[in-house]
Amino acid sequence: MKLTTVEDVRAAAERIRDTAVRTPLLPCDWADTDRPLWLKPENLQPIGAFKIRGAANAIARIPEADRANGVVAYSSGNHAQAVAYVAKRFGLPAVIVVPENTPATKIDATRGHGAEVVVVPITDREIVAERLVAQRGATLVPPFDHLDVIAGQGTIGLEIVEDLADVDVVLVPVSGGGLASGVATAVKGLRPDAAVIGVEPALAGDAAESLAAGHRVEWSAHDRARTIADGLRAAPSDLTFAHLLARLDGIVTVTEDQIRDAVATLATRARLVAEPSGAVTTAAYLHRAADLPRGRTVAVVSGGNLDRDLLASLLVTPDTRTS
Amino acid sequence: MKLTTVEDVRAAAERIRDTAVRTPLLPCDWADTDRPLWLKPENLQPIGAFKIRGAANAIARIPEADRANGVVAYSSGNHAQAVAYVAKRFGLPAVIVVPENTPATKIDATRGHGAEVVVVPITDREIVAERLVAQRGATLVPPFDHLDVIAGQGTIGLEIVEDLADVDVVLVPVSGGGLASGVATAVKGLRPDAAVIGVEPALAGDAAESLAAGHRVEWSAHDRARTIADGLRAAPSDLTFAHLLARLDGIVTVTEDQIRDAVATLATRARLVAEPSGAVTTAAYLHRAADLPRGRTVAVVSGGNLDRDLLASLLVTPDTRTS
Repeated sequence: MKLTTVEDVRAAAERIRDTAVRTPLLPCDWADTDRPLWLKPENLQPIGAFKIRGAANAIARIPEADRANGVVAYSSGNHAQAVAYVAKRFGLPAVIVVPENTPATKIDATRGHGAEVVVVPITDREIVAERLVAQRGATLVPPFDHLDVIAGQGTIGLEIVEDLADVDVVLVPVSGGGLASGVATAVKGLRPDAAVIGVEPALAGDAAESLAAGHRVEWSAHDRARTIADGLRAAPSDLTFAHLLARLDGIVTVTEDQIRDAVATLATRARLVAEPSGAVTTAAYLHRAADLPRGRTVAVVSGGNLDRDLLASLLVTPDTRTS
Repeated sequence: MKLTTVEDVRAAAERIRDTAVRTPLLPCDWADTDRPLWLKPENLQPIGAFKIRGAANAIARIPEADRANGVVAYSSGNHAQAVAYVAKRFGLPAVIVVPENTPATKIDATRGHGAEVVVVPITDREIVAERLVAQRGATLVPPFDHLDVIAGQGTIGLEIVEDLADVDVVLVPVSGGGLASGVATAVKGLRPDAAVIGVEPALAGDAAESLAAGHRVEWSAHDRARTIADGLRAAPSDLTFAHLLARLDGIVTVTEDQIRDAVATLATRARLVAEPSGAVTTAAYLHRAADLPRGRTVAVVSGGNLDRDLLASLLVTPDTRTS
């Protein structure tokens, strides 16, 4: 199976330059002295998540002849916003297929980026998307199972090594595995001595179990849906799992309480609003230190889209909680 | 009176390069189409505020012979943290003089950066600081009333023009005026056609009244203390007022409700935790549009240090508020 290369990631960096923000590494003055911490704040991208990088690289690669037919994506989350936003920037029409239970605010946001939204029963998402591709000659932009998407997410790893050449440890969330595959490709390719460690919620720890087994172990969607980290409920594909197996140095899991604590820590100590999925790496840094290599550590904060009231509830200190 | 120059700001940028984060401009996909908005997130600096820039420039300029005698600052807020943090980075001892009513958490944070903390009655702050300077041969680092501090804060303006050469409007908070003086120096010097507009809380609107009058009008500290924006309760000095008079294109004020709304908007739409003082520019963008020039707008988000429970309370949506 062909895996993404550092050269693919370098080429992606050129393509996404005008679309994605070049996020800085933020040093944390509250970190342990023997393992200084920097945050890579991808929650500060337009639409609030790293997804814009992979979408931009994939859409930039669509051949000229196919561009007018537009793009299709199925997602109710950050990937939908990313495809809608990037398609508008590139001047392509976009159709986003979303399941019936998607909150109206998310549908409005997607329409706000100029995309057409098609609401279908959740089990019909893929088939409707494929039908749109066939009917319109549109290009499907998958959320993670694609080399161009992986290379786009990998630009995060490229920037980490550019900004911190002697990085020792990179912590990256794992869900479908596109982000972790891309980041591991870039970091291990440019600095083989650095460790790239995936982080998963224990309640959606299928990738951790799969990597330990050396082959994909399926968890039910129902089980994976238990975690508060709603962006980490997908499972790796054959393509991303091959990347993870070849290039990740390890994977750790975090509990729901650790994730909640990390959201509050990021807001109060790093002044960043992170969604639970974006906070898992900080949760690992804070609570799984014994299982991580020492040294200069970077935590990828992958996104910042969460319900306002949920954020407020996670910020209320125990003393002032009413329940 | 000698004012800061663009050359001073350029020199400051070299001096602070290893201490301050090169913050990006963050495009806002929720902005009005005829006045696109970018945020300059200085809340992401170490210690959570722009103050680190001015402190770094001033401390970098201390003559070699005086460095071992250290630095002194009097402040209970972001400036204290900034001086303590920068002094530690530069290897200089620091003494911070704080008033008796300073919360223990802030004193602990200052000590955490390795500074000595001297607690005194609030009216004695300046005199104790001056005595420490005389006794130890230490160098006082003032929060705004100093050309080196102004030039350091001005590096924000330099970076804005580097990243957005055709910026039309820059919104900057005004308190003691060091930040606004520096930013206006850089922006007007490099792009005279851009408008630099100061923003103040109406409840601490002494600079607005002073600029309208053409001379400094004093408000009582008691009056200025009414605003929730606790970083904007200082008043300009002769030095900073001369900069504001010469280089600001205007000044607008915002209400307390507008400031609170802007804190919530920044958290939910821009995924940034801003303190009320850091949110006044966004408040002006959102609520004082009729009084601002059109065009490509940058709002300086100056800091992100606020009480966790206050942030939680500002995020609770009206429907779910219990009071």
